[in-house]
Amino acid sequence: MTSTGALIEERLSSGSIVSGRLLASELGVSRTAVFKHIARLRRDGYSIGSLHGQGYRLEPRFDGLLPLEIRNRLTTRTFGRAIEMLESAESTQILLRRRAEEGAPEGLVVVALEQRAGRGRGGRAWHSPRGGLWFSLLLRPKIPMRELYMLTLIFGIAVTRALKQWGLEPRLKWPNDILVGEMKVCGILLETSGEPDRAEFVVVGIGVNANFPAACLPEEARPTSATILDLLGEKIDRAALLGAILSESEALYGQASSGGFGPIVREWKATSCTIGSEVVISSLGREIRGLAVDIGTDGALVVQTSNGLERVYSGNLSYSKRKGA
Amino acid sequence: MTSTGALIEERLSSGSIVSGRLLASELGVSRTAVFKHIARLRRDGYSIGSLHGQGYRLEPRFDGLLPLEIRNRLTTRTFGRAIEMLESAESTQILLRRRAEEGAPEGLVVVALEQRAGRGRGGRAWHSPRGGLWFSLLLRPKIPMRELYMLTLIFGIAVTRALKQWGLEPRLKWPNDILVGEMKVCGILLETSGEPDRAEFVVVGIGVNANFPAACLPEEARPTSATILDLLGEKIDRAALLGAILSESEALYGQASSGGFGPIVREWKATSCTIGSEVVISSLGREIRGLAVDIGTDGALVVQTSNGLERVYSGNLSYSKRKGA
Repeated sequence: MTSTGALIEERLSSGSIVSGRLLASELGVSRTAVFKHIARLRRDGYSIGSLHGQGYRLEPRFDGLLPLEIRNRLTTRTFGRAIEMLESAESTQILLRRRAEEGAPEGLVVVALEQRAGRGRGGRAWHSPRGGLWFSLLLRPKIPMRELYMLTLIFGIAVTRALKQWGLEPRLKWPNDILVGEMKVCGILLETSGEPDRAEFVVVGIGVNANFPAACLPEEARPTSATILDLLGEKIDRAALLGAILSESEALYGQASSGGFGPIVREWKATSCTIGSEVVISSLGREIRGLAVDIGTDGALVVQTSNGLERVYSGNLSYSKRKGA
Repeated sequence: MTSTGALIEERLSSGSIVSGRLLASELGVSRTAVFKHIARLRRDGYSIGSLHGQGYRLEPRFDGLLPLEIRNRLTTRTFGRAIEMLESAESTQILLRRRAEEGAPEGLVVVALEQRAGRGRGGRAWHSPRGGLWFSLLLRPKIPMRELYMLTLIFGIAVTRALKQWGLEPRLKWPNDILVGEMKVCGILLETSGEPDRAEFVVVGIGVNANFPAACLPEEARPTSATILDLLGEKIDRAALLGAILSESEALYGQASSGGFGPIVREWKATSCTIGSEVVISSLGREIRGLAVDIGTDGALVVQTSNGLERVYSGNLSYSKRKGA
């Protein structure tokens, strides 16, 4: 992009009024050059008003996910400050991983309006029709791989905090699903690459069943899935939700980077529907049954089984008797 | 490759005599087709003898690293059963990672006679002139990332066991260097990709300063590096060394897969020059000084510092006073 374009976009995304006259003289370009870039942005789908005698102003559409509309909602320093938006992606994870390998900086976000081959944990499919919020965030944390579980907790908490702003009561299900009631509204996938003692990068994928009815999901996913549209009876502003998730996670990430794991583990436990429930976990070919009693400081789910306490680090969990049920 | 070619190569690499007449009739091809493949292998550099009236036999050259010569030395079931050999690679790690992403099976080995941009831990350069043994091995272990340290221990032990067969007395330096005396003869690099609770694949890179004089290394590497040629005063059969490393590591890997971590940690400690030494570790921006006293069952190096015991999971270690020195 030209520096003219970059500056116009920066000003517009901050909510400022962009005076074509002032900007043209500041950059030493013609007012026509400024107008041409505004015209291009309008063709891209942006709603940009002309304020007579003052200049141009971006008017973010409700639920608009174009990059400047998202940046307009952001209160973060690095998360989401660079954004790529795609109408349709095979998978935002795959694209962002490629960007990571090319050297992209921490905080880059890739959003897709739909994913053709969205991925969940363990290589499972994640259905990503239009209307959902499907995005991936690039992190370059300076931690050994054994501490990655902390990121799982952080993003789980961040999503629950964000959803609460819309009046929902989300619960965390170990290791990283977000439920409302018994139904999944959001999944989180962490993928990483690097050496055992230092992650080179982490790609955090977050998928929220937002503005589509659960009827749009394939039959096998419906019994366990909910959508925000169905729960609230109306659409949510996905750009605002994305901004809230990024803002909450950036704050928690900063806290963890300065060693504050304790409050994160406590909040996760307090928001979880797993602790206190009778669970069945299939983990690396074994089945573990018992009462989930704690999350260890090393990320283990601690399960009281008939053979004593077991520490479980991976697996698929289901409830045999959910807390309070 | 044609099935004729594959079968000829399988027979040759096992050390069998390949009868052109019998093979031709077995496969329903002409004896000329068999001979043509033998001729191609000879052009590729293989030494294949003709035993009058019996057939062809591969005669592996001393220190020959062509795939059939390596397979001829192998006693493994999966490690190294598939091999790619390159005259010159940018980095065997990068190539094998690409193969992993394409779905290559566990055990695939990539060998390069030289690396143009060999990599060590933390993105540092690893000098890989001709004469060394530079290879990468693909693993697909069913373990969470927090257990990858066990692979670091396994490959360290496997290399020391192999080098002992040539009368050397190698020692392990935490986290994964192999020294003879004070000097590094081998480095090990583990790189992985996957989800925190399940590695998708691990690429194990092993570089042995084998058949070249240390004078071939750049000046900055010489004060800390030794080569087997310098230590023994003669060349080693690299294919045999590779076979020994793969054989030892496959055995240990099998042992670890069935949960036998205890003997591995014990052997690592017994072979280590780190435990019992005064160490300085720079780890994620901090410096830790003290006496290295143990390796924990979670892979931590346990250091007795002036503030008590510290568990260190990553970093670069140097000795302030080495055990026995």
